[in-house]
Amino acid sequence: MLRNIKLTIEYDGANYQGWQRQRNTRRTLQEMIEKTLERILQERVSLIVSGRTDAGVHARGQVANFKTYTKIPSKKLKQALNNLLPDDIVVARSQDVAGDFHARFAAKSKIYRYVILNQKYPSAFWRNFAYFVPNQLDFRLMQKGARFLVGRHDFRCFQAAGRKAKDTIRIIQKIKVSRKGSIIFVDIQANGFLYKMVRNIVGTLIEVGRKCQPPASIQRIINSRSRQFAGPTVPSRGLYLLRVQY
Amino acid sequence: MLRNIKLTIEYDGANYQGWQRQRNTRRTLQEMIEKTLERILQERVSLIVSGRTDAGVHARGQVANFKTYTKIPSKKLKQALNNLLPDDIVVARSQDVAGDFHARFAAKSKIYRYVILNQKYPSAFWRNFAYFVPNQLDFRLMQKGARFLVGRHDFRCFQAAGRKAKDTIRIIQKIKVSRKGSIIFVDIQANGFLYKMVRNIVGTLIEVGRKCQPPASIQRIINSRSRQFAGPTVPSRGLYLLRVQY
Repeated sequence: MLRNIKLTIEYDGANYQGWQRQRNTRRTLQEMIEKTLERILQERVSLIVSGRTDAGVHARGQVANFKTYTKIPSKKLKQALNNLLPDDIVVARSQDVAGDFHARFAAKSKIYRYVILNQKYPSAFWRNFAYFVPNQLDFRLMQKGARFLVGRHDFRCFQAAGRKAKDTIRIIQKIKVSRKGSIIFVDIQANGFLYKMVRNIVGTLIEVGRKCQPPASIQRIINSRSRQFAGPTVPSRGLYLLRVQY
Repeated sequence: MLRNIKLTIEYDGANYQGWQRQRNTRRTLQEMIEKTLERILQERVSLIVSGRTDAGVHARGQVANFKTYTKIPSKKLKQALNNLLPDDIVVARSQDVAGDFHARFAAKSKIYRYVILNQKYPSAFWRNFAYFVPNQLDFRLMQKGARFLVGRHDFRCFQAAGRKAKDTIRIIQKIKVSRKGSIIFVDIQANGFLYKMVRNIVGTLIEVGRKCQPPASIQRIINSRSRQFAGPTVPSRGLYLLRVQY
């Protein structure tokens, strides 16, 4: 019987060239997990993922699914995967789902987190896990700026230059900017994200936090629909896919 | 004029064979920092450290000092070090101190932290930064057991097998076991530590947390003065030298 198995996956992206399998083979998450599955199942496996993550991006709750004829119970499968995968990839959950479940098309919303280390000196521990910003950031201003992003907008201004998604309208359901000691978190929940949208939004919010522009400029940038008015793209190492909701 | 400079250093120990410089040269913290200093100062440098850390052990506030004739202001020196050191070593502070300051002999007490990840599945992010224990730990029992350690005791039972320090009496000034979600912290402040003492204490407290032995057994183990009654040595990756007090 053909089964459909959903995996919830955590990974430290520092040592990977992103999710998507590549030809002239570099280390990717998809390849690593597919190969490990094939070793366990002795079948060809194709993973469908909720969304590809770029090189260096992390995940706490990435979701992927695949079809298989194996009879291995899903819990055993999780154990086998965790025994064989490198320790920067952990399968947190493995479950049988309905045959029509599709990790990408069924996703209702996703939550991304961006982590900023805001102190005078860098940290040996956060070097792969946060973006180091030595300039003082006023996170209250960032919170004010973030409010303009909530809702249904054309986010074309935050799409990576050169990308031309036809439909650039997305709904940001929630955005939270919080501070804990030297760490600033930006959590964004949306029904979908354009390519590099989170990293471009955060780059713009950092400009607001540095007082290079006022919070209300976010509104003007959205209205401009032009990438050139938004801030720079911040590095992938601060970005985490936290959760996918179905 | 001969200066004495004190450095406060943070490091991720995962990629180092511990602090101490070794002959058939493997990557050590001492060598990395001395070589970088020599490159900046164009002089031979010998670092005196508060205490050597083992392979894989981390530091938030390691302290070392060295003598130099350089005229570079200490703040500039810190900047130069941070520019040249690999990013898993960060100099948090550099300051001129009295000529008789000695990082090891002047230390009044040290605080070590041990981090345990206590959940069913391992984590991609904590793999080098905590010891993963899947068995449920009762941290209240660990707190109870820890109380027996506070004070002036002969801690011979927690000294690494084969080591024979003459004086095995130390004073534990404070010990705190706390839990935050899946993470258990064990913070120990003492006037000095025997070799592997923290890791052997934590191994014993974990046995208490797993209910393999009652909290009061800690008292009996101390009284035994014998390594064989204490728990196993836990791995170095969960250990952090937090602070040295002078």
